[in-house]
Amino acid sequence: MFTNFLQLQNGINFAMICGTLGLLVALALIRSILTSSAGTPKMGVIAGAIQEGAKAYLNRQITAVSLIAVVIFAALYYFKGQAAAGGFVIGALCSLAAGYIGMRVAVVANVRTAAGALLSRHSAMKMAFSGGAVTGLLVVGLALLSVGGFYALARPLLGEAEAINSLIGLALGASLISGVARLGGGIYTKAADVGADLVGKIEQNLDEDDPRNPATIADNVGDNVGDCAGMAADVFETYAVSLIGAIFVGYLTLKSTPAAILYPFVLGGISVIGSILGIFYVNSSKQKPGASLITAVVLNAILSAVLFYPATTMLFPNEIVTATMTITSQGLYLSALIGLAMTAIIVLITNYFTSTEYEPVRRIARASETGHGTNIIAGIAVGNHATVLPAVFIIAAILGSFHFAGLYGVAVAVMSMLSLSGIIISLDAFGPITDNAGGIAVMSESPKSAREITDELDAVGNTMKAVTKGYAIASAGLAALVLFGSYVEELKSHMVDNMGLTFSLSDPRVVAGLLIGGLLPFVFSAFSIDAVGKAAGAVVIEVRRQLGLHPGILTGQDTPEYGTCVDIVTKAALREMIIPALLPVLTVLAVGFIPWLGAVALGGVLVGTIVTGLFLAISMTSSGGAWDNAKKYIEEGKHGGKGSSAHAAAVTGDTVGDPYKDTAGPAINPMIKVVNIVAILVVPLLFK
Amino acid sequence: MFTNFLQLQNGINFAMICGTLGLLVALALIRSILTSSAGTPKMGVIAGAIQEGAKAYLNRQITAVSLIAVVIFAALYYFKGQAAAGGFVIGALCSLAAGYIGMRVAVVANVRTAAGALLSRHSAMKMAFSGGAVTGLLVVGLALLSVGGFYALARPLLGEAEAINSLIGLALGASLISGVARLGGGIYTKAADVGADLVGKIEQNLDEDDPRNPATIADNVGDNVGDCAGMAADVFETYAVSLIGAIFVGYLTLKSTPAAILYPFVLGGISVIGSILGIFYVNSSKQKPGASLITAVVLNAILSAVLFYPATTMLFPNEIVTATMTITSQGLYLSALIGLAMTAIIVLITNYFTSTEYEPVRRIARASETGHGTNIIAGIAVGNHATVLPAVFIIAAILGSFHFAGLYGVAVAVMSMLSLSGIIISLDAFGPITDNAGGIAVMSESPKSAREITDELDAVGNTMKAVTKGYAIASAGLAALVLFGSYVEELKSHMVDNMGLTFSLSDPRVVAGLLIGGLLPFVFSAFSIDAVGKAAGAVVIEVRRQLGLHPGILTGQDTPEYGTCVDIVTKAALREMIIPALLPVLTVLAVGFIPWLGAVALGGVLVGTIVTGLFLAISMTSSGGAWDNAKKYIEEGKHGGKGSSAHAAAVTGDTVGDPYKDTAGPAINPMIKVVNIVAILVVPLLFK
Repeated sequence: MFTNFLQLQNGINFAMICGTLGLLVALALIRSILTSSAGTPKMGVIAGAIQEGAKAYLNRQITAVSLIAVVIFAALYYFKGQAAAGGFVIGALCSLAAGYIGMRVAVVANVRTAAGALLSRHSAMKMAFSGGAVTGLLVVGLALLSVGGFYALARPLLGEAEAINSLIGLALGASLISGVARLGGGIYTKAADVGADLVGKIEQNLDEDDPRNPATIADNVGDNVGDCAGMAADVFETYAVSLIGAIFVGYLTLKSTPAAILYPFVLGGISVIGSILGIFYVNSSKQKPGASLITAVVLNAILSAVLFYPATTMLFPNEIVTATMTITSQGLYLSALIGLAMTAIIVLITNYFTSTEYEPVRRIARASETGHGTNIIAGIAVGNHATVLPAVFIIAAILGSFHFAGLYGVAVAVMSMLSLSGIIISLDAFGPITDNAGGIAVMSESPKSAREITDELDAVGNTMKAVTKGYAIASAGLAALVLFGSYVEELKSHMVDNMGLTFSLSDPRVVAGLLIGGLLPFVFSAFSIDAVGKAAGAVVIEVRRQLGLHPGILTGQDTPEYGTCVDIVTKAALREMIIPALLPVLTVLAVGFIPWLGAVALGGVLVGTIVTGLFLAISMTSSGGAWDNAKKYIEEGKHGGKGSSAHAAAVTGDTVGDPYKDTAGPAINPMIKVVNIVAILVVPLLFK
Repeated sequence: MFTNFLQLQNGINFAMICGTLGLLVALALIRSILTSSAGTPKMGVIAGAIQEGAKAYLNRQITAVSLIAVVIFAALYYFKGQAAAGGFVIGALCSLAAGYIGMRVAVVANVRTAAGALLSRHSAMKMAFSGGAVTGLLVVGLALLSVGGFYALARPLLGEAEAINSLIGLALGASLISGVARLGGGIYTKAADVGADLVGKIEQNLDEDDPRNPATIADNVGDNVGDCAGMAADVFETYAVSLIGAIFVGYLTLKSTPAAILYPFVLGGISVIGSILGIFYVNSSKQKPGASLITAVVLNAILSAVLFYPATTMLFPNEIVTATMTITSQGLYLSALIGLAMTAIIVLITNYFTSTEYEPVRRIARASETGHGTNIIAGIAVGNHATVLPAVFIIAAILGSFHFAGLYGVAVAVMSMLSLSGIIISLDAFGPITDNAGGIAVMSESPKSAREITDELDAVGNTMKAVTKGYAIASAGLAALVLFGSYVEELKSHMVDNMGLTFSLSDPRVVAGLLIGGLLPFVFSAFSIDAVGKAAGAVVIEVRRQLGLHPGILTGQDTPEYGTCVDIVTKAALREMIIPALLPVLTVLAVGFIPWLGAVALGGVLVGTIVTGLFLAISMTSSGGAWDNAKKYIEEGKHGGKGSSAHAAAVTGDTVGDPYKDTAGPAINPMIKVVNIVAILVVPLLFK
């Protein structure tokens, strides 16, 4: 027992050392960013406005979320004890920190990327990627440190069972922030974007990022609070929740094997090393931007695949015999490989459906020639088609990893998939930085050569953003399935006679649950799309007001008041977020406590939400990405180029795609997990 | 036993007598339609072209489907015996007859409605509604006669078990035709509609139904083959399949109670009487068109509710005690009432979301002011919101009827809901007749007063079409759940030890099945939307070719070749139908026979298809109906009226909504049921 404990502690220490290493590299990257040139004074003014707007939004978001957090903290403290409540605070703070710091770095990296573009493509690229890498390393570093530290501390004090149970508090904290950040950030970024476009591009014929548009700073702020802070909080949560889910499942199903708790930590730790190497590779590579990013991911995956093998055989020298199967180290290793393979597969598939080089995007571009309607129809069809391959591979991954090592095998596959988050998030956070750098370059009137560099990097960033969204959704779906497994195990552990607990599809409560769960993503996305529409409407009114009051803005004589637009979107995003944020939580509570439904129907809700949520999210983000790039493809001069009727139709598609791909679609990820985590927490109360 | 048999025979005889009565009234209506004035000679020419095109399409569809039917017939004969194969032929022929005759009547009623409009609103209304009522009565009459006749004949020859098993062959026959008619007709109608609009309205600025548009006859043919023949075959199938499902469930779960088999027939028979009375009411009513149609439905429902009570207590004088519950006549009557209430609720909900009088449609109209993009976003959000209430009531209906009488209670609720099909389909088939009458009035240059009458009736027809789509989807979803129950029972009856058969959500095969099933409606709708796009593209090219070759068409000097457009759409619709039609069948076979998946995963597929299929279908048809009416609302002069930029945006929404509401959305209904029926048929083969 003592040896076991030592081993366990060592494994967690290894993960925490790797996590710390990740944070140290992030610190070094921040230092190197801050010591680079901050560009011309004009750039500084614009970047300052963006920084200020982003900070203002996040501060207000923190104030708003604190109120909810206090209520949840009190409820957790009362029902679950101080450890779970403490875990909640840690999870929330770390999720917040990942988003907040990552975004703060992004808003200083953007102007330095614009400045770098004045020198060379390499220096611009290096600056943008370093900014993204800070977020990537923060996410994995903080997740390993917080979960590992909490567990290492709580276990000797509370005992194993209680320590693991309290981790669910940490997961809830992470989910709360992630849900709010994804949803609020998503509404913010698209309300500002759509609002700015509706008046600027359509009514006044201004270009993207034209400084005469009063909503342009809000639009750039949105990139940071949505794509950067929102995504960072989201993946931090998926990572932490998957790690906790794997520990939970390992503990509940393989009680006699302490290594089952250790293994997920070790997988995470190993991949941090790979991510750091990948990041150094990109920063010193002479390849084209897109190619060097992909090479870095492949390098990381290969390194992880190689190092996972000795780690697995060392941790599991003996077979584990459970009631239903025998688990070997080979089986576990194969499950981990499935997770790595899933990452590669999902990246390739999303790239196919959203890149300008392949048929789907080009089909939408062709359909734009016959008008707005056919552009939309083609985009929706592409999004629906895009669900097939990810679903097939997700199903194969579930069946394969379950075959090799049961529910724990699925958890291992998810953890292995997410262990690559460090490098994947680096790619994603690269996107908003280059997007902003482009905006700053335009607004500060950089020379054409610099703007060509930022445009090229922006296009790469767009593809990376779409690709990482596919990754985030697939991993969130798998993570949620592990949580559902945890829910079932948790439920069994509270029942005297659990033989009757089958969640059978023949039970009408299960079918009712599946329908309620299946409904949730549809309603949730309807509310979040509406939210963007309403908030964008508020922006339109404000911009029209400013232009009406000060006609000099359009001629360049007056400066617009950027601040009021930032302020309006901030308030609208937080207000419109309330209903969709409450929806999943209230649904779980209602189903759990309505006598005709209860715990069995709740199981149906969890799975139903995963089933439709997965497809809706993939379909929405793929349609959105494809519409965006179909517009870009036409702007390259195809089908008549800018100003043609095909271009006008493609702009419509892009507008529809905006809330699809950046608000409703991605916000489904944390929603799915919130539903599952709240259900796990509610279990003991259902038996009171 | 002998008394029981006599009773049983009497009950079925009652249903068959009612069915025959329905057919006789239909015959009388046909006679009264044929003896009415067929209008001016110009009307006759146009109507003749539409009739010819519709006949040509249906004939080609029959040829195409015969090939598939021969293969299925052979397979059924080989695996299931001659009775099932015979049932298959009967089901297919009756489904075909319902669609074919209904459509033939509609294409003679349309011109007479246009002629009636020259006299008065009442005579136009009477003609259109009589045409629709023929289809309504055909559907229920043929269903009761075919299922009742087959069972009455097969039972003494083959014994009860074999007779009931062979009924599944009849269900498959109905489903085959219904699937092909819905999908092929849906692709046809929207390809012609979108194709005609893209060139006619957008490129050449022609009005709807302008005789100079070479695709205008194809467009009018489409209304008949899609909305009329497709809908009739679909609801015939839902009716027959629900009746068979109820018999199946009654036999498998309540073996010792012969009345359980009789009861669904009696419910159906009673409602035919109510439907006939409702039809007479409409034809003699002085109310406004919309109000008199709704009153007829309410009358029918009340009469059924009253007559169901004595029928139920007479059939079930004693309680039925099963292994898990006690079923009383009160419980069964309450289940039947739930079915009637569901009809009313679904009609009200769909009306709210798609009528110009309420907020959803008006919100889309408002959003059209800010452009194409916001119109689309608003429409999608409305469609997603529209899923909530139907889902909540469907869930309540499932739980309630299951609580009252187990799975059989659910089957009774579905059968009771469908017993109102006679009157509901009369309303629906009213739609394409008035739509066509409007077209004929425009093309034959009727006076303005007559065109105002056809326009008014057309608007009522539009709402009715949307409302009955909601009814068709909700009943199809419930019917599919009964089929899933039948699948489970059928599976159990083939297993030596069925204790292990739980379809537990904790089983990865069930989760895999749910994901595969959940995927099906997304892929299916992607293919059917694509099909419309491709076929419409072919129409655009043909129309451009004709206008280029004969510029005299636009000035009215040359007559366009309507026939080539009809021909092109016919071929394209049948060709594009192949992949989506095969998809569900091949999926079921693949899942059933892949060793890692098998019967348990197949159960997941069935439920998964129902869950996402229900929501996608409701969302698509509601969005589509709302977009259509938002355009109509603007055309009434709101938000700038015809020719404004808001109107242009609304036309885009209508174009997107066309394949949503008339192709992909409604075709999901038969798809869900095909999946379930094929699964039931495959069961015995899984154990060979």
